Amino acid sequence: MNFCSNCGAPVEIRIPAGNSHPRHVCPQCGTIHYQNPKLVVGALAEWEDRILLCRRAIEPRHGYWTLPAGFMENEETTAEAAARETAEEACARIAVGELYTLIDVPHISQVHLIYRARLLDLDFRAGEESLDVALFREEDIPWEQIAFRSIGLTLRHFFDDRRRGHWSFHSASLAPPPAA
Amino acid sequence: MNFCSNCGAPVEIRIPAGNSHPRHVCPQCGTIHYQNPKLVVGALAEWEDRILLCRRAIEPRHGYWTLPAGFMENEETTAEAAARETAEEACARIAVGELYTLIDVPHISQVHLIYRARLLDLDFRAGEESLDVALFREEDIPWEQIAFRSIGLTLRHFFDDRRRGHWSFHSASLAPPPAA
Ligand SMILES: [Zn+2]
Ligand SMILES: [Zn+2]
Repeated sequence: MNFCSNCGAPVEIRIPAGNSHPRHVCPQCGTIHYQNPKLVVGALAEWEDRILLCRRAIEPRHGYWTLPAGFMENEETTAEAAARETAEEACARIAVGELYTLIDVPHISQVHLIYRARLLDLDFRAGEESLDVALFREEDIPWEQIAFRSIGLTLRHFFDDRRRGHWSFHSASLAPPPAA
Repeated sequence: MNFCSNCGAPVEIRIPAGNSHPRHVCPQCGTIHYQNPKLVVGALAEWEDRILLCRRAIEPRHGYWTLPAGFMENEETTAEAAARETAEEACARIAVGELYTLIDVPHISQVHLIYRARLLDLDFRAGEESLDVALFREEDIPWEQIAFRSIGLTLRHFFDDRRRGHWSFHSASLAPPPAA
């Protein structure tokens, strides 16, 4: 951030009165520009013993498989975000169930939320941001080609819980990956 | 948003290629300025049969009681945010437990997360944003002076779950309040 989005003046970085953290502050109009973590919301949708994965047509992780998920929009709920992302990326209709995982990714200031969901019909296809969309049994999951650690973690919890016959909410925090 | 925070040019509102929603777009440098919901994170901290509430010294809801909670900062986890807000508003140290409630507040583009927590000692006092901090038994909760609906809902779930002896995660979505 270089300029004030309110008045267009160059911003300064300083700790405003009563604040604990340095902020981008506008010396002309006084606006404090807070920056906050973003929510990424998605769905783990089931059809019988299979789950819905999308192969990414965009960076990052072009060509890798993921659950449908993306940045939450203003003026929607987290469950609505999960259904919208599934519609956009997989052209699929789901019934959203319970929140299943919350994964903190503090080094990129994100919080990932994945809901369990039920696929309502088989009339799905790749959306604009997907190369392919398919249903996978556990033994067919492309574990080496999963796009994001939070998605791999969610899938492992899912198959573990299903095997045990006991479903519970899971949370985790991811550290930065090792340098390449 | 009136000006591009990157280059300072006036922004336009339009739907960029491949986007589903209208965005603030900079015609000079091409930056798409996304706006996303904010996370508010807090703690329901117990000490024996009492819970910790803060009386707000700031607007909105000056003088009303709340759980310590506030906007999540970049580069922290949700559990760290709950502990930090409790330290800032109640000068209290807690052990953060499980996520307890997720409350969508789409009309103000917020998601509220409240963690259960254990107060580690009785050495607490009002922080800068609080008029008072105190421990309350269920029968002493000032129900008519609770600052926010998401906090009242969380407190009611807490006392219900404690009475039943069965703890579970709760989620809800709040509609806009009736016009005054
Ligand atoms: Zn300004
Ligand atoms: Zn610009």
